[in-house]
Amino acid sequence: MDYLKPGDIETLCLGATLLGAGGGGDPYVAKLVAQQALETYGPVRVVDPGELPPDDLVLTTAVIGAPTVILEKLPAGTEYVGSVKALASYLGKEPAAIMSIEVGGLNTLLPIATAAEMGLPIVNADSMRRAFPQIEMTVFTLAGLPAGPLSIADEKGNQCVFKTTDNHVAESLARAAVIQLGLANAISCYPLTAAQIDEHGIHGSLTYCNEVGSLLEAVKRGEEGSWERFLTESGSAEFFRGKVVDLDRRTTGGFARSTVILEDLEGGDSTMRIEVQNENLIAFLDGEAVVTTPNLICLLDCETFEPITTEYLAYGNRVVVIGMPCAPEWHRPGMLELVGPVAFGYDVDFVDLPNQPR
Amino acid sequence: MDYLKPGDIETLCLGATLLGAGGGGDPYVAKLVAQQALETYGPVRVVDPGELPPDDLVLTTAVIGAPTVILEKLPAGTEYVGSVKALASYLGKEPAAIMSIEVGGLNTLLPIATAAEMGLPIVNADSMRRAFPQIEMTVFTLAGLPAGPLSIADEKGNQCVFKTTDNHVAESLARAAVIQLGLANAISCYPLTAAQIDEHGIHGSLTYCNEVGSLLEAVKRGEEGSWERFLTESGSAEFFRGKVVDLDRRTTGGFARSTVILEDLEGGDSTMRIEVQNENLIAFLDGEAVVTTPNLICLLDCETFEPITTEYLAYGNRVVVIGMPCAPEWHRPGMLELVGPVAFGYDVDFVDLPNQPR
Repeated sequence: MDYLKPGDIETLCLGATLLGAGGGGDPYVAKLVAQQALETYGPVRVVDPGELPPDDLVLTTAVIGAPTVILEKLPAGTEYVGSVKALASYLGKEPAAIMSIEVGGLNTLLPIATAAEMGLPIVNADSMRRAFPQIEMTVFTLAGLPAGPLSIADEKGNQCVFKTTDNHVAESLARAAVIQLGLANAISCYPLTAAQIDEHGIHGSLTYCNEVGSLLEAVKRGEEGSWERFLTESGSAEFFRGKVVDLDRRTTGGFARSTVILEDLEGGDSTMRIEVQNENLIAFLDGEAVVTTPNLICLLDCETFEPITTEYLAYGNRVVVIGMPCAPEWHRPGMLELVGPVAFGYDVDFVDLPNQPR
Repeated sequence: MDYLKPGDIETLCLGATLLGAGGGGDPYVAKLVAQQALETYGPVRVVDPGELPPDDLVLTTAVIGAPTVILEKLPAGTEYVGSVKALASYLGKEPAAIMSIEVGGLNTLLPIATAAEMGLPIVNADSMRRAFPQIEMTVFTLAGLPAGPLSIADEKGNQCVFKTTDNHVAESLARAAVIQLGLANAISCYPLTAAQIDEHGIHGSLTYCNEVGSLLEAVKRGEEGSWERFLTESGSAEFFRGKVVDLDRRTTGGFARSTVILEDLEGGDSTMRIEVQNENLIAFLDGEAVVTTPNLICLLDCETFEPITTEYLAYGNRVVVIGMPCAPEWHRPGMLELVGPVAFGYDVDFVDLPNQPR
């Protein structure tokens, strides 16, 4: 991937939907936005952080809010570049490149559109390689890098800038602001240098996203052995095939939360329960946690193998539940306190996947 | 008042407590802070807005939060100058003077300390000449002047800057932020030029505060005819003498709210009910509204004539309830929608005082 062109977005979008782990916002609209931006402004150069001069400023942009709201509140198109410009203006420095803070869900694709519009390259790295619901949940926090100064912009022209003493305060201030601004806004956070991203970020996130998207495309085309190949090459494992028999959904505290109950599709007695805060966080098989955050829990349609985001999940859906390994960069000191089950209030131990790569 | 010296603060403080209309935060700590700042940094020059070059930037500073919290969370001392500097840095322009946004409660005195520390004059004007609980409740909003860009700072070093499309959004974002930052923080808002303040502000607020403070001092000394003189010269009227028999207090939505019930002190059947959101908003005598916002409802101790702020009010307190006229600058189009009873959700008509000056 040297350059991203409109034709590259479809595969990336499929990978991004999967890496959203049920959250991250359905990327359909972001796909159209990215494709149109690449058509209008031309291809976007993809760079590794090490290719940039070390002191170059890299700015991120993302939607912040609840997927259930993002689904209905379409972007105006001005808020993402707006959030980057607001932060650049506050910092008094222009960005040399744009980066996705989370390669997973629509925040994979929106930064590509922003990079195209601003005529900047996109960095092939991120801080999650999946979606997470809170700002502080990044490998940068593990490295002690600040989320701020950060900016939030809405489509009406309201702008916030926060400079915070720690990344948990950044999350609470940003969340409080987006609750006031309609729960689907643009954020630019973690203003870092190329050298900081090179040292502490997750490398090759866009490449990985494209690879899992491509593997899944083969499955969707029904190619022989493609499902096994997808599982093997992505290090994933299948945990359940079931039908959604109960779905308790609520948008509280600025998040889309739900509990999903699946019954065994083949008529067995087993049930799976999945707890969701924007993203799928823990999968319990007959009461026992079998996949836990930060590993990814992804639901795919049994027949089309299309990844299903939580806001689209419905009673009666027949799904395959897989566990995918998180990026190896997550396995650093502090991981479990920051993004393990305990970080979300669950008294559940982290569970390794059968072939957990580290 | 050409210069404010430590010896001037006591009278100003008494006037400010009265003009707090039950809210504005008890100014005792702010009095000590202001006195010490004037002793340390020297007297502060008092200027009328018309004395300053018209394009000079005037910045304000105030505490924002709930009086019940402000009472217990003492200022660190760095956050007020911090809020001014954060906003000046965002605007890229240094202030020529400091102004109080609300002459009423402790926000009368904190800007004096800030002016002393920054070596700047204080402007003899404000936007309320009483205390109000919400940022948009100023005569500047009536004039269509923006509350932002505004900054919020806490004692730990967290800073927020908001640029908003209207003053109600400014209030909601600022309130959401202070709820996250401990409900007693520093704000700098309404960055205006001297000319804008001269045209749209309330003039002579500090002088007025000093005058009512001085009139009340005479009452407290027990001077013959001083109570009648206080009422006449301030345009106020006495509405009730009663004992607190019920007090329902709750801190919700970032505000200190309460309902106060008073029984007639002389044994009559009448009762007075006062509704409070940080400040006393409406006084009902036997169910009928007799004093309403934006006029001031002030409770004074029956014997000492010390104004009582809502957070100190207690069961059994014996109080005189007076209605004081709001600044004449409030009587402009839009007043009732912005600060009348309806603005606080009460289906009650505004009531003129017996000798309402306009």
